[in-house]
Amino acid sequence: MKNVRHLIEPKDLSNSEIMELVNMGIQMEENPQDYVNLCKGKILGSLFFEPSTRTKFSFDSAMLRLGGNLMGFTDVNTTSAKKGESLGDTIKIMGAYTDIIVMRHPKEGAPKLASEYSTIPIINGGDGGHQHPTQTLTDLITIKKYKNTVSNHTIALCGDLKFGRTVHSLIKTLARFNTKKFYLISPKELSLPKSIVNEIKLNYDIEIEETSELEAVMDKIDILYMTRIQKERFFNEEDYIKLKNSYILTNEKIEPAKKDMIIMHPLPRVNEISKEVDDDKRAIYFEQARLGVYVRMALIAKLLGAI
Amino acid sequence: MKNVRHLIEPKDLSNSEIMELVNMGIQMEENPQDYVNLCKGKILGSLFFEPSTRTKFSFDSAMLRLGGNLMGFTDVNTTSAKKGESLGDTIKIMGAYTDIIVMRHPKEGAPKLASEYSTIPIINGGDGGHQHPTQTLTDLITIKKYKNTVSNHTIALCGDLKFGRTVHSLIKTLARFNTKKFYLISPKELSLPKSIVNEIKLNYDIEIEETSELEAVMDKIDILYMTRIQKERFFNEEDYIKLKNSYILTNEKIEPAKKDMIIMHPLPRVNEISKEVDDDKRAIYFEQARLGVYVRMALIAKLLGAI
Amino acid sequence: MKNVRHLIEPKDLSNSEIMELVNMGIQMEENPQDYVNLCKGKILGSLFFEPSTRTKFSFDSAMLRLGGNLMGFTDVNTTSAKKGESLGDTIKIMGAYTDIIVMRHPKEGAPKLASEYSTIPIINGGDGGHQHPTQTLTDLITIKKYKNTVSNHTIALCGDLKFGRTVHSLIKTLARFNTKKFYLISPKELSLPKSIVNEIKLNYDIEIEETSELEAVMDKIDILYMTRIQKERFFNEEDYIKLKNSYILTNEKIEPAKKDMIIMHPLPRVNEISKEVDDDKRAIYFEQARLGVYVRMALIAKLLGAI
Repeated sequence: MKNVRHLIEPKDLSNSEIMELVNMGIQMEENPQDYVNLCKGKILGSLFFEPSTRTKFSFDSAMLRLGGNLMGFTDVNTTSAKKGESLGDTIKIMGAYTDIIVMRHPKEGAPKLASEYSTIPIINGGDGGHQHPTQTLTDLITIKKYKNTVSNHTIALCGDLKFGRTVHSLIKTLARFNTKKFYLISPKELSLPKSIVNEIKLNYDIEIEETSELEAVMDKIDILYMTRIQKERFFNEEDYIKLKNSYILTNEKIEPAKKDMIIMHPLPRVNEISKEVDDDKRAIYFEQARLGVYVRMALIAKLLGAI
Repeated sequence: MKNVRHLIEPKDLSNSEIMELVNMGIQMEENPQDYVNLCKGKILGSLFFEPSTRTKFSFDSAMLRLGGNLMGFTDVNTTSAKKGESLGDTIKIMGAYTDIIVMRHPKEGAPKLASEYSTIPIINGGDGGHQHPTQTLTDLITIKKYKNTVSNHTIALCGDLKFGRTVHSLIKTLARFNTKKFYLISPKELSLPKSIVNEIKLNYDIEIEETSELEAVMDKIDILYMTRIQKERFFNEEDYIKLKNSYILTNEKIEPAKKDMIIMHPLPRVNEISKEVDDDKRAIYFEQARLGVYVRMALIAKLLGAI
Repeated sequence: MKNVRHLIEPKDLSNSEIMELVNMGIQMEENPQDYVNLCKGKILGSLFFEPSTRTKFSFDSAMLRLGGNLMGFTDVNTTSAKKGESLGDTIKIMGAYTDIIVMRHPKEGAPKLASEYSTIPIINGGDGGHQHPTQTLTDLITIKKYKNTVSNHTIALCGDLKFGRTVHSLIKTLARFNTKKFYLISPKELSLPKSIVNEIKLNYDIEIEETSELEAVMDKIDILYMTRIQKERFFNEEDYIKLKNSYILTNEKIEPAKKDMIIMHPLPRVNEISKEVDDDKRAIYFEQARLGVYVRMALIAKLLGAI
């Protein structure tokens, strides 16, 4: 097997590689015209074994803005996997048709397995509740762009901290960059798994405070990271209804916050942030989605050896 | 919000803008090689909340022939809208991924609503039974190309004039360009809504004659615009069967028509025009579909500020 | 109708045309950078009336590597065919939107019918159990590349020889190039149709031996062409289970084979070739899939008149 780089989880990247991608992404966002031919003639294969237009479109846009091309599937039922083909075989063939693969799969570990068969770079676009490394890169480029550095912030994460893959990846990665303090805000039923809390406490000197009160911490934080409480995580409708409204952000709730605090969200949102908040300067979640294109451009270019 | 132009309905365009698009489209059709890089690096996002390959392919082809790129969805079930995301949020995000959007939606008014959130141009690719402005532009470029002018014609519209969104847009727009006379040919049950007839009579000095007899007017008209009688518009099968064959065009029926009359149809047709008619020089409905690509090229280029 | 070339079945191509495509494909594989703009601005329309990502992706990759563009559908339910449009009409319209069409259809003869209405080249991407000419070209470029010539080989075809369209096209085409001998290896229930055997015996001086024993011929052959025994070909599950394992290739079974024998398979495989065989130098089925892209590049370029 050739020496091919993949991105399966954030820890595949060193701290300096992460910052290289973040900085390159910011450069690309500021001077997009300098990169319009960087990946000309290259093909991105999108293998979405589970639909996710948000992630797919962000990669599509990134590859097109680098001058590259797209092919792939969003419906596994139309593929040879349906005829009993193994993942390894599918990946080997796609390696003949494309130059780089982004893959989303409902099974944890599938992208890792795929990378073992692949002759071309594989990017994990999300595997079950496991990893979603390019969302983490998206979060980091946004923090860097809006707060000048990814380090030394007081960061509140709010909502479903138990099942949210986005949050797990983000917390573990932020911890590597000297976060000052984490506030973990969730209903008890949806609190961050103890294993992650312990992992951070063991390895880093970062203060962690768990609470179910969002408003109490509002004036203390630099970054508020909101997440959606997913209906599909609940066993009964009643629990869902009770909890889903517990952390709805409104203009009133953010009133006491610092003037330069930023509000982030991986999107899509349902109603965890009121529409009225969109017009507040601190609400940068749509900017976050936009910046995600540029850090993915940097990632694709790096893995293809174009930069 | 920036000063962004959208096309939601034909009246968003002035008469001179319509003719600018028609004439530019004809120029593009005659010299396609001059425009192959006009939208290089730009991305068209196709948001089809309801399938319509005909409209989608026409836009796809237009954007590709301008050197641009494509992304989008044709199945709303694979999108974040499924997770409860609002249309406004979807549009804001797509504005970060693409440069111009064509949108089809089953709900009337959805493209208008979308345009209120959008930072990039939105083209209405059809909203319910409401508007379909690029079909109207397609009809106009065809009339201009084959009859030298869009004005002063005697025009028969035949078939389902009640539910056909295509026909409503077309009649109202043609009225703005000094049509000489409209024959409205339909079964009584499917006649043009009175409100539209009155609107034209009130604003323009155009003769309108309503009839259920196609053959009686055949020798009087310059343009015959046929439409499909859609099965899905009927409450019972019996009515459908009785009516669907009432206006089947045959070589025999068009025998008395003028030699330079043109037969148009928005397509797809089922059996309202016999295949034998395809070989008649007056049958230009496939040409009409082809010309639709070029007027869409002009529209995309104009909205992107490329011309 | 203009003088347009189509590829509906292998015999649409003369022997010298087949070798022209094979040799051009090899040249394209060896110097891909020389062809990256060959079909710039051209559009491939993929009309998949039945899903087949393998074939679709191979064509997609071929067109993109020639600098061309893609559009099309993989789900007939989203198309105008669903509204009762005839195949002829669909093809005429697609001829206005694209420059060349690849079409897959569940009905035998559909691509042939389509070609009668088309003003642009049509490539048959598989019609029912009938023809699949580009798979045959893929097989031939692989044999040429790995055995220097497509002639004078002793070739064993193993598995489902009754229903396998791939095999029928391949045998008939190989026969045109002086194959030395065919071993036809299958269970009696899935043997090659007598009509094909007789056609070859009548027209060519090629030895044909039918057997159900794979191992007995292993040391005699230059090329072993394996095929999948498709579950969907069986009327009852019991027959399927009994037969599907009859020709599983293992390292032990290929031990007696010549050192320069090659093992081919149209893919996807299920378990008819053990994974352990993949590492054997003689196993070239993934190479075969890769080479299929280049012979399709040659075909597209030829039909578009670009070479």
